[in-house]
Amino acid sequence: MRIALGIEYDGRAFAGWQSQPHGNTVQDILNQALGRIAGNRDISTVAAGRTDAGVHAAMQVAHFDTDASRPLNAWVRGVNALLPPEVAVVWAREVDDSFHARFSAFSRSYSYFLLTHPVRSCLLAGKVGWYHQALDVDAMREAAQRLLGRHDFSSFRASECQAKSPVKDLQRLDIVEDGGLIRFDLVADAFLHHMVRNLVGALLYVGKGALDAAGMQSLLEARDRTCAPPTFMPDGLYLTGVGYPETFGLPSQCEAGRLKLR
Amino acid sequence: MRIALGIEYDGRAFAGWQSQPHGNTVQDILNQALGRIAGNRDISTVAAGRTDAGVHAAMQVAHFDTDASRPLNAWVRGVNALLPPEVAVVWAREVDDSFHARFSAFSRSYSYFLLTHPVRSCLLAGKVGWYHQALDVDAMREAAQRLLGRHDFSSFRASECQAKSPVKDLQRLDIVEDGGLIRFDLVADAFLHHMVRNLVGALLYVGKGALDAAGMQSLLEARDRTCAPPTFMPDGLYLTGVGYPETFGLPSQCEAGRLKLR
Repeated sequence: MRIALGIEYDGRAFAGWQSQPHGNTVQDILNQALGRIAGNRDISTVAAGRTDAGVHAAMQVAHFDTDASRPLNAWVRGVNALLPPEVAVVWAREVDDSFHARFSAFSRSYSYFLLTHPVRSCLLAGKVGWYHQALDVDAMREAAQRLLGRHDFSSFRASECQAKSPVKDLQRLDIVEDGGLIRFDLVADAFLHHMVRNLVGALLYVGKGALDAAGMQSLLEARDRTCAPPTFMPDGLYLTGVGYPETFGLPSQCEAGRLKLR
Repeated sequence: MRIALGIEYDGRAFAGWQSQPHGNTVQDILNQALGRIAGNRDISTVAAGRTDAGVHAAMQVAHFDTDASRPLNAWVRGVNALLPPEVAVVWAREVDDSFHARFSAFSRSYSYFLLTHPVRSCLLAGKVGWYHQALDVDAMREAAQRLLGRHDFSSFRASECQAKSPVKDLQRLDIVEDGGLIRFDLVADAFLHHMVRNLVGALLYVGKGALDAAGMQSLLEARDRTCAPPTFMPDGLYLTGVGYPETFGLPSQCEAGRLKLR
């Protein structure tokens, strides 16, 4: 049978999602815990998106196949008892074999939290990005409009990106400010490697007056990563949800209480 | 001259505020950094409240005396450059010698954040308390009413408490629920050792139906710690502000963006 999982993790503790020979990745640690619950059989998970080192997930979705018949709660509470504090399974659902965590997903949602304050955060160190002065949020919103829609996002693509096409459909890029904390909410069919951090890095340049909306448009049209501002820090980036066809009956967003920064 | 500081820290990294021979306390580490900025002279801080190990501060207030004349920003940026990521000075003000961080304070504000969910938090591990099921928040609010005002809080006082009197004036105990995260906001003239964690522990018993408002009243009147539910975990507890007479011109609460859990 095929099981889908909703997974939460603090990205600082791991070298990203994707399995590595050293084993300190979310996927490696999750596979091991699932394997023990399955009766020491090998379990291999497939995720909706491969997050980088330092990037958090309020809701990553993964699936795996097993012939071990367990109550669904064993894939939550049982697995959580074997996982370190920085990762947990929040929900488990049985899905039919047509479900694929990566290929069935039609959208991914990310949020980036940015503290603008002269003093770095202690309480949210590693959990929010930080810039030492106030930013022009209206200008950032105006420039963000130029990025919406279906575009070749090569200017915001990491050189090591493995995506087949640089064309992605950015459906949402909202910027909300609340008491010195700026939140960027992004939704796209899929994101290129480093795309959110590169977009936030470029919007930061707009916010501090080093780029304007027309400049952002030119940057997008240049399709050249070397023209764009640097990749911003991973600290404030969260995968917050994955969209699947309703027929699979899965939650599309993390529960509100679990990512209370917003 | 006398300098007042607003200080933020992640309590998990330290053995509480109060200086200890082993040196891994907020006070020890702060004194050292201030001493270096003062030109390698001994600096000794006095805080509004001595927080326990694991208890956070969104705004602790401390003062110190020095004859080292520095721009105020040196006591913020200069000191922060010498502090570990888990502690920072957020503001510094020169105050006259009549100011005393502890004795001038007429109130302390604390917030406790409690996640009620079958699955523990990863993203806010150590930053929120956790209970595995939903609680009756209305019943907790009703019981909280019985605690307001000037009372002998011996039932909620740790045995090692050094306060001269167990009589404190609890001016506020609000309970707010938002998407599975419950926040307790408390204000009193001062708090006994473990008082907030003991009150939250007793309110948790109310929330799960093991105690009612009349029982809370009896517990308060018993003035006997051995009658009360256990001390709750420190993880979700934050010192959020200290009240001083307006004449000193100090902020009374942490800035909103710096404790975005609320």
